[in-house]
Amino acid sequence: MVSNISLDTSISIPEGSVGLVQSELVQFDEPLLLSSGQVLPQYELAIQTYGELNHDRSNAVLVCHALNASHHVAGMDANNPKNIGWWDNMVGPGKALDTDRFFVIGVNNIGSCFGSTGPASINPATQQPWGASFPMLTVEDWVHAQARLADYLGIKKFAAVMGGSLGGMQALSWAITCPDRLENCIVIASTPGLSAQNIGFNEVARRAIITDPEFFDGDYHNHNTVPKRGLSVARMLGHITYLSDEVMAEKFGRTQRDPTGSGQYRYHYDVEFEVESYLRYQGEKFSTYFDANTYLLTTRALDYFDPARDFGGDLARSLAEVSARFLVVSFTTDWRFTPERSREIVQALLKNKRNVTYAEVDAPHGHDAFLLDDRRYHAVVQGYYDQIAEQLGLGTRQRTTGVLA
Amino acid sequence: MVSNISLDTSISIPEGSVGLVQSELVQFDEPLLLSSGQVLPQYELAIQTYGELNHDRSNAVLVCHALNASHHVAGMDANNPKNIGWWDNMVGPGKALDTDRFFVIGVNNIGSCFGSTGPASINPATQQPWGASFPMLTVEDWVHAQARLADYLGIKKFAAVMGGSLGGMQALSWAITCPDRLENCIVIASTPGLSAQNIGFNEVARRAIITDPEFFDGDYHNHNTVPKRGLSVARMLGHITYLSDEVMAEKFGRTQRDPTGSGQYRYHYDVEFEVESYLRYQGEKFSTYFDANTYLLTTRALDYFDPARDFGGDLARSLAEVSARFLVVSFTTDWRFTPERSREIVQALLKNKRNVTYAEVDAPHGHDAFLLDDRRYHAVVQGYYDQIAEQLGLGTRQRTTGVLA
Repeated sequence: MVSNISLDTSISIPEGSVGLVQSELVQFDEPLLLSSGQVLPQYELAIQTYGELNHDRSNAVLVCHALNASHHVAGMDANNPKNIGWWDNMVGPGKALDTDRFFVIGVNNIGSCFGSTGPASINPATQQPWGASFPMLTVEDWVHAQARLADYLGIKKFAAVMGGSLGGMQALSWAITCPDRLENCIVIASTPGLSAQNIGFNEVARRAIITDPEFFDGDYHNHNTVPKRGLSVARMLGHITYLSDEVMAEKFGRTQRDPTGSGQYRYHYDVEFEVESYLRYQGEKFSTYFDANTYLLTTRALDYFDPARDFGGDLARSLAEVSARFLVVSFTTDWRFTPERSREIVQALLKNKRNVTYAEVDAPHGHDAFLLDDRRYHAVVQGYYDQIAEQLGLGTRQRTTGVLA
Repeated sequence: MVSNISLDTSISIPEGSVGLVQSELVQFDEPLLLSSGQVLPQYELAIQTYGELNHDRSNAVLVCHALNASHHVAGMDANNPKNIGWWDNMVGPGKALDTDRFFVIGVNNIGSCFGSTGPASINPATQQPWGASFPMLTVEDWVHAQARLADYLGIKKFAAVMGGSLGGMQALSWAITCPDRLENCIVIASTPGLSAQNIGFNEVARRAIITDPEFFDGDYHNHNTVPKRGLSVARMLGHITYLSDEVMAEKFGRTQRDPTGSGQYRYHYDVEFEVESYLRYQGEKFSTYFDANTYLLTTRALDYFDPARDFGGDLARSLAEVSARFLVVSFTTDWRFTPERSREIVQALLKNKRNVTYAEVDAPHGHDAFLLDDRRYHAVVQGYYDQIAEQLGLGTRQRTTGVLA
């Protein structure tokens, strides 16, 4: 179901970009039984694809997204070419994930607000937005829905499933729940389960949203309103946890927002420091486009993810059936999902004598580092994909673009 | 102005406690010129004292409080003996700060909601609560008001000014702004200025309060309401930053609040994990007794504190006139005010060839460690006070109680 869009051919495509991309909607009419026991009667998944699926369908890579992202992974949105995919620095012809050789699929998760069926979608049974009645989801539910997408696309086994942060949890869950369906699992800036501190921050964000009087128990659609205040606070808090103390010091420090240039404090609660201006802007922008119910269910899915839980807390046992090779990447200044948490995954894989490559990248940016250009980080990922291409006979790299060019 | 209270003599006083204590209110009728340029026409300070002021008034120690504390530093509140002072483990006969030898003063800051004049007090000019019209304050304003208290008590020079966190900033500011009025300065778990991350967290907390529809631009008193939702979110967030990731993992981990004992997730946004229950409880309790305007002005005073600011960012220059000896203490797992920040103070003092003792205590509790019993931490403080007593000829310790006994 691709809507016809007349592409503006005057737009110049940068080297290494997959160019203008259109989204597709794939409809699934078979009900999806969820971890909660609830059933999603039908759903649509919004996807984008880059590169070409090869003849034996062995070169497909699934990219899973984090809280605030979507299926628009790479390239320029055909409807709005200034809207660049969230991992465009990683995915493209000649880039670390090389679309000259790999067929890359970006998929928007159910429960999202960027195209796939979610709380803001119309519930066919009521012809009203699902709102608060949209079922709760887990990472495993997302993987289940994505596996059906693989069936639809005729992909029996992915060359790799890859993701950062919450996307990395999905990749890990793929390796556990569908071990025969991926050759490689790439888990970046992720964790085998949220810490109490992580859950605590999620809970603060949720309380900000849920106690916003405009939330109306999740049925704000029916009241023609949006819990913007709560969403904004949630996003501001999120942003702090995505950045390292170091990078915030460097970006903002104690720099004043000082329109008069006097250098004096103005003694009020409006913006006095640059960091306040940044956070407020991010919060307010987010509250204009992100669905509050999606925020709630996504943070809850994060809380719930804990593959070791069914194995008495033993992560190694939860990974016993895994057959994929792994690349695990963490960032030294990521205090949200610390390198220690990635090392737990690595240790559990090694206990099972699985093939795992681990890189701990010394990057200053905190959790957000997984989204940023970093030569050493991209070199690790590129090297790993070159290995995959060799394993699967996908040919050698024809060009190198992006941060590594 | 002590109200007469009939003390219940049947209450047993634990060893090392200063016993039942009453608060006093001291009235100041001389207007206080504030950093902002505004004037507080008159104000009262609530205080408590423990021990006896000696003949030459050389044994007085001023204890400054942090965001959520008061002048009730030690002992049992005579009006409610279960209400134990916030630093009772530190202050008492035979304790680290030994009231057998020192005369200790706890003072509630202006702007607070625990007895001293603050936004919830009646503005004499209007006979209404000050509310949003209460002036903004700085750490220097608090020190100024405390110096007047010293005058009132006839104390020319403190044996020490001491505080943790925001209280440590006040101690540091005493050493800078009134160098001749303290022999020693004890700065615990503090910082010479908030980082961008610190300001960011404060700003999120303030936005939660200010955007609460019950805030009414700070004049909620006139609407007979309280911005409880915002206060609760602010306090939940604060709590996370007071605790280390490690201690949260140990206290809560991923333990579920599981009334049915099934071990199953219940797929809702009510309490699912113990950490959520703890944070909600703390937030709700706080919102019933803490004044929102006090929260705002106190976090802003934290943001503003930056003694190096008038010296081109050079902390050493800002300390050039300091004459006090220093004890600086930090805690390894304090990620709010990290040991690095304390070391900045130490380095700046050493640059000025000042006498400074520095202890970095390996404690698991995060920022909150400064309030907790920790043998090594208290031993450092006790040793330092024993030195002060020797310097000032206050006699030797007669007994040791508390964590060090």
